[in-house]
Amino acid sequence: MNKTIKICMIGAGRVGKNHSRTLNCFVPGSEIVAIVDPVTEFLLATADEFGIPNRYSSLEEALGKCEFDAVVITTPTPTHRDLAITAANHGKHVFLEKPMALNLKECDDITHGAKSAGVHLQLGFMRRFSPEFVAAYSRIQAGEIGEIMMVKSLTNGPGLPPAWARDLATSNGMLAEVNSHDWDSVRWLMGSNYQRVFTEVANFKGKANNVDTPHFYDNAIVNIKFESGGLGSISGICPCGYGYDARVEVYGSLGIMQIGQMQGQAVVVCTNRDQGLVSPIFRTWPERFANGYIFEMQHFINCIKTDTEPSVGGFDGRWAVAGVLAATKSMLENRPITLDEILK
Amino acid sequence: MNKTIKICMIGAGRVGKNHSRTLNCFVPGSEIVAIVDPVTEFLLATADEFGIPNRYSSLEEALGKCEFDAVVITTPTPTHRDLAITAANHGKHVFLEKPMALNLKECDDITHGAKSAGVHLQLGFMRRFSPEFVAAYSRIQAGEIGEIMMVKSLTNGPGLPPAWARDLATSNGMLAEVNSHDWDSVRWLMGSNYQRVFTEVANFKGKANNVDTPHFYDNAIVNIKFESGGLGSISGICPCGYGYDARVEVYGSLGIMQIGQMQGQAVVVCTNRDQGLVSPIFRTWPERFANGYIFEMQHFINCIKTDTEPSVGGFDGRWAVAGVLAATKSMLENRPITLDEILK
Amino acid sequence: MNKTIKICMIGAGRVGKNHSRTLNCFVPGSEIVAIVDPVTEFLLATADEFGIPNRYSSLEEALGKCEFDAVVITTPTPTHRDLAITAANHGKHVFLEKPMALNLKECDDITHGAKSAGVHLQLGFMRRFSPEFVAAYSRIQAGEIGEIMMVKSLTNGPGLPPAWARDLATSNGMLAEVNSHDWDSVRWLMGSNYQRVFTEVANFKGKANNVDTPHFYDNAIVNIKFESGGLGSISGICPCGYGYDARVEVYGSLGIMQIGQMQGQAVVVCTNRDQGLVSPIFRTWPERFANGYIFEMQHFINCIKTDTEPSVGGFDGRWAVAGVLAATKSMLENRPITLDEILK
Amino acid sequence: MNKTIKICMIGAGRVGKNHSRTLNCFVPGSEIVAIVDPVTEFLLATADEFGIPNRYSSLEEALGKCEFDAVVITTPTPTHRDLAITAANHGKHVFLEKPMALNLKECDDITHGAKSAGVHLQLGFMRRFSPEFVAAYSRIQAGEIGEIMMVKSLTNGPGLPPAWARDLATSNGMLAEVNSHDWDSVRWLMGSNYQRVFTEVANFKGKANNVDTPHFYDNAIVNIKFESGGLGSISGICPCGYGYDARVEVYGSLGIMQIGQMQGQAVVVCTNRDQGLVSPIFRTWPERFANGYIFEMQHFINCIKTDTEPSVGGFDGRWAVAGVLAATKSMLENRPITLDEILK
Repeated sequence: MNKTIKICMIGAGRVGKNHSRTLNCFVPGSEIVAIVDPVTEFLLATADEFGIPNRYSSLEEALGKCEFDAVVITTPTPTHRDLAITAANHGKHVFLEKPMALNLKECDDITHGAKSAGVHLQLGFMRRFSPEFVAAYSRIQAGEIGEIMMVKSLTNGPGLPPAWARDLATSNGMLAEVNSHDWDSVRWLMGSNYQRVFTEVANFKGKANNVDTPHFYDNAIVNIKFESGGLGSISGICPCGYGYDARVEVYGSLGIMQIGQMQGQAVVVCTNRDQGLVSPIFRTWPERFANGYIFEMQHFINCIKTDTEPSVGGFDGRWAVAGVLAATKSMLENRPITLDEILK
Repeated sequence: MNKTIKICMIGAGRVGKNHSRTLNCFVPGSEIVAIVDPVTEFLLATADEFGIPNRYSSLEEALGKCEFDAVVITTPTPTHRDLAITAANHGKHVFLEKPMALNLKECDDITHGAKSAGVHLQLGFMRRFSPEFVAAYSRIQAGEIGEIMMVKSLTNGPGLPPAWARDLATSNGMLAEVNSHDWDSVRWLMGSNYQRVFTEVANFKGKANNVDTPHFYDNAIVNIKFESGGLGSISGICPCGYGYDARVEVYGSLGIMQIGQMQGQAVVVCTNRDQGLVSPIFRTWPERFANGYIFEMQHFINCIKTDTEPSVGGFDGRWAVAGVLAATKSMLENRPITLDEILK
Repeated sequence: MNKTIKICMIGAGRVGKNHSRTLNCFVPGSEIVAIVDPVTEFLLATADEFGIPNRYSSLEEALGKCEFDAVVITTPTPTHRDLAITAANHGKHVFLEKPMALNLKECDDITHGAKSAGVHLQLGFMRRFSPEFVAAYSRIQAGEIGEIMMVKSLTNGPGLPPAWARDLATSNGMLAEVNSHDWDSVRWLMGSNYQRVFTEVANFKGKANNVDTPHFYDNAIVNIKFESGGLGSISGICPCGYGYDARVEVYGSLGIMQIGQMQGQAVVVCTNRDQGLVSPIFRTWPERFANGYIFEMQHFINCIKTDTEPSVGGFDGRWAVAGVLAATKSMLENRPITLDEILK
Repeated sequence: MNKTIKICMIGAGRVGKNHSRTLNCFVPGSEIVAIVDPVTEFLLATADEFGIPNRYSSLEEALGKCEFDAVVITTPTPTHRDLAITAANHGKHVFLEKPMALNLKECDDITHGAKSAGVHLQLGFMRRFSPEFVAAYSRIQAGEIGEIMMVKSLTNGPGLPPAWARDLATSNGMLAEVNSHDWDSVRWLMGSNYQRVFTEVANFKGKANNVDTPHFYDNAIVNIKFESGGLGSISGICPCGYGYDARVEVYGSLGIMQIGQMQGQAVVVCTNRDQGLVSPIFRTWPERFANGYIFEMQHFINCIKTDTEPSVGGFDGRWAVAGVLAATKSMLENRPITLDEILK
């Protein structure tokens, strides 16, 4: 099937812009024909920036007035379930950003909705398509570092998340909005599901940022025990200020593997010997995972064209949500939480 | 102009494959409609691999039977002049690989041919589009490291070049075929033309590779004095075996800037403490400059669409050839050569 | 006081050898005049290797037959209390290896013993003297990365610890024997004491190593909450096989600081482009902290000469033991442990 | 022989201070008993700083009034010949800083003087004792990177050398005073002598520094052809401002080896994502080669104690001077110079 895949972008914010740029500039065979956002100002700005011809205030409107093959959902988490199901029910393939949804019930609804409608559902875990993660996973699978004993993953983001993203009523907070990728990465690389988690959090910058959301935290470390017996650690700081930092270390019975680094472009400068060597850091997630975003979108388009199941879908999205729920419960109750308590 | 730019790929070898992959996978708005190669076996293999519908044994045949907007010339250097001029005369825009041609007369013919025909001519100096080089150039221009005093550039390639590429009768040898990029980079970053060069070469692997070409060398270092008074150094080793290594160091009155590195993917492994830490090296030039190839092709397509002069063209290609000719003369005559002797 | 400080080395094993080499080769103003070990074979081998003239099977024998100013205690943890107190009671200054002792009572006995005798007591936390840790601490103190929010410290050692060091009856296991340095480092760098810890452990290599010690683990991660509100993480793997890996990351309100690296000597080699770049890793702790061992011993000698209190002593040793006890209790009881439960 | 070796330090300037600190702090078995400098202010300051009891304005005075075993000569190059010969004639072992002397005749006088007197002569090529150079040399000798084809060595120093060090009448300039180490390193690592050199120099900062010395240059690149057929490059910038930068790259038939790096302490910080990662650079030569200075002094002391010939002596010092003389002649005459012209 060589026809161009027509996309409706849902959400005109930062993530929507990033995927629009990626599709426009690096994904031949796709075309963003429509964009949806209830906020007219954002809608028009993003549509103009990326030359998207059709602009709508709701998915329903888009479905009624425009033809397309797939949606890319980049809106806040609480909207995911309904948007995904609506799109699926109209026969549109669904690319869905993380976190998949607010709870396991919503995750199940989405997965069931896509399956019933016979459309493809891909979750936005772009790290699985980032070349260094792909290579690392493949080398781990090949046994290069032996049996996996420990996986540590960190994601620190530069800025304060929006209000909805730190309120437990509308989101599961930083562990969901920022660390979803870590939840997916450690499970994927360990090759085993979480069994027990314990969370410590801290709030260092909330006051200065006038955040009075209950349970707000900007630092978190989660200890994980996997079903395999392996250990894991996820940590996050947001806002960390210093850049977008996403690194993983995997320890196997035969050795260590480090995935990712802080350094961005290979340019090293020194103009002051009292300061020292200076090299770029990844400033933002679009920079850090530029290739991951390209390859996940190429995968999505290719899965549609070849009618193939995406390699990362609702099952993975649901597990990440389960981890987040357990870790949040641990934070609230100050005790280790087994996944049984969440999955039951 | 939003129409798709139709390309005829000339040359089905390694470079032709690389540009075909780049255009197909990462350059929306372009389409390779034809490919030309006199060797049927290569022609069909590459055409099949990249789904190119029309296959021809000569540019003339392609021009007669197929419609396209531009050519990408990837054939051996001695063919460049005639192919470029023929394409230009038929109104096709020309993307021309380095080295531009065998001598300055041929370079002038090509530049004049493109200008007369009113088509765009872009030279294949992809480093100028590689993000770390782009950033470095911009920071140098902004004065970050002051006045440029010294530039060193090296390119070492893994394998033995083909026979035509090491015979002075059909090519200017390694300094042209491998180090053309260094010639362009040092001139670009220094912001000044070469004034004098001195070359030392060595032949360490010729015998083992059964190379009996006269004047064959596989190691070279060229000292350069620029018109600005600055100093430069270009070195090359081919075959070096250990990877594709392309790095530049620039020294300004205010400090140092290193551009590029040997390390490829950000994956570090240790499974043996007697061996130590192991990380990927760039194995080949398509790996090392993957982004450079994408962005130079996007630039070419965009220049055609917007009728803009490409940022790197015949003038730059001619200077690189002049440097190579001076350095080769220095090698043959064992003395420093001023560019006056070449440009007169 | 310019006289040479006379040392009695207690313990002729790996640590005793390391300190003997350090004192002999890099610490002018000191002289090892005696060595003590109950195992004659080790005693003579080490004494011969380092030219130590007087050899004894017990500290008591040494005290009776030889004159010296100080002892360096490098024997297994269960012997620390009695050796340290005996030496102090005879007016000898005490350099005591970590872990300080098996429990807080023993720690208190040692501190009290040294104080009563008026001798100096220095704990073997050499990281506090390792140049990169010294610089990091000083820069943190100067506020360079702001208020400290999170500290992560890991130590992975290549080989299986001896039997006594993994039995809870004679040692507090890996968290004590290997990770004592991490306990000290995170408290020192955070500038706050531990408040609560939670431990996960795993046993991946015990079986293959024929270890049947109860509660044996070779992988551990400890979550820490500090009194300051800051978070911490300590992890250890032993035997990890791949080298001696000790690294710390500190996150402050203004940024990140990484202390230490895996790479040893600045020699990078590539001879195989399929393998990639290879550089040395620190193979062992004597390699990794060579400078730390020199400077801690110079500090000890200098404190004796100038009658100055060592910068790291019993107070710090006791806190590291308290952390280990809490973390071990957490492991045994599968729940977070507050330090109150240990310190009460 | 276990007696303490008594040293007379000749020269109370930067190099004299550096060796005094090294001997005092890290070389058991040695003692600086006297120091010589004609400038009383420097003499007393350095003597006080390092607790050196006997201070003299001339070597002759020291020889008459004080007993010692060896001298460490750190004075300007023009004084080397007479000081070394005088010391040797009085039976003192000689540690002599680079460059060995101003010309080959002086070098021969020194070597002959030491040999006649039966004393040991060690040249101050501390890189041969720096652990990463030692390891690299040993690995090259073991054949790890095959036959050596190319060696590049650079030394850039932060500050302007003193007036005597840039005047061809009293010194051979930067190529001698700063790059002597490179001359020694490339010859040592290549395992072959220089056959031909060609030099380009530039003067970028002389005017701003009010330097009107004839032939002054602050940037230089030298191309080298070795007797083995291998190629080499030496470059220097002084003052470079940005730190003390000394790195070598060696290319063999089997691969590449990089020796040394710019990064100093393993501390990486980021507090500003627009600036990026910052890590220390070696600021000065005492920092960069701290270990090299320790081990070369330990070697010298040990050679005296065991009556062993130092591993680097007059023969090596003479070759470095020959290289400098050839490169300087090339600069003055704008042509490649064969070593025959210098050695005849």
